[in-house]
Amino acid sequence: MNNRYSFIGGEQGLWRVLEVRNISGEGLAPVERLNIVNDAITELPAKSSWILQGFSSNVRYAVREEITALQAVQPQLNRTEAVVSVLIPIKKSVHWWEMAQDERRAIFEEQSHHTAVGMEYLPGVARRLLHCRDIEEPFDFLTWFEFAPEQTQAFDELLIRMRASQEWAYVEREVEVRLERGDRA
Amino acid sequence: MNNRYSFIGGEQGLWRVLEVRNISGEGLAPVERLNIVNDAITELPAKSSWILQGFSSNVRYAVREEITALQAVQPQLNRTEAVVSVLIPIKKSVHWWEMAQDERRAIFEEQSHHTAVGMEYLPGVARRLLHCRDIEEPFDFLTWFEFAPEQTQAFDELLIRMRASQEWAYVEREVEVRLERGDRA
Repeated sequence: MNNRYSFIGGEQGLWRVLEVRNISGEGLAPVERLNIVNDAITELPAKSSWILQGFSSNVRYAVREEITALQAVQPQLNRTEAVVSVLIPIKKSVHWWEMAQDERRAIFEEQSHHTAVGMEYLPGVARRLLHCRDIEEPFDFLTWFEFAPEQTQAFDELLIRMRASQEWAYVEREVEVRLERGDRA
Repeated sequence: MNNRYSFIGGEQGLWRVLEVRNISGEGLAPVERLNIVNDAITELPAKSSWILQGFSSNVRYAVREEITALQAVQPQLNRTEAVVSVLIPIKKSVHWWEMAQDERRAIFEEQSHHTAVGMEYLPGVARRLLHCRDIEEPFDFLTWFEFAPEQTQAFDELLIRMRASQEWAYVEREVEVRLERGDRA
């Protein structure tokens, strides 16, 4: 099983890009389509503007109790009704990465309630977290969210709460790519 | 700064291989020399038997108190007197990686005293930890140790203590490559 995913912004792919919102730091160029490949793609295909790569990995902060609670409610990707998606690449500061494990965990959960807040939006919003700092990518994480259109308002609220958290003080670059399934009527 | 390192086992490189000890699981072929390159090398050079790659990353378990204590005593690599080195690639089990952060931390430190035991051998033994599970390598970690010949007995004792720990019950593959600087008289 390949743990690597490539997100290619260009003119091809299942997902139609509705908007590329540059939230903070350097932005990404607007594109028409997003092609997601479960492999490492290093050469930019023709008519494409960018590639972002990430890998799935083990959990870094969640404790047993949180994992058990998450596993009970988190939905799979590719649900028929999940025709709306959002890709959020973020990069955190050097200060974040130089902190010890207990310091990062305290900000992530005890102060920002990252897992607890996210769980309030389950099972409506499906999520896949990919890591990319370790492979010398421009971002540190790529998070992919998928949901039914009627979950959009709840998702927007989740974003507002996350960005207001203590953890987000360490986010120095963020882009929000809004998409919908391209085969949608 | 490139965080990627490649260890090429063959006939070239500064380090002369004294022994390749296959400790558990599938072994590595014996080689004459080890070439260390601070970059991603994916194609096996001529007359080489294997390449192992890893990346340096943020700390995964150490808390602030431990990091502060470590920083006060840990030596740099490339000390003149450190003419002996050991490369230890290990792979942990699926069970290890499926555990929550608190479960892994408890085994790593509270039960196995990984950091505390390692600290007893500082500043004699310099160490660089590289991660490789996330980049689809055959091992999960590559640890590189460098020390003066008179530290060899202490280092051997450290290995015995680590391998007797609770944490090592999750190590399913391990190789120990013993080396000395090839320019040594």
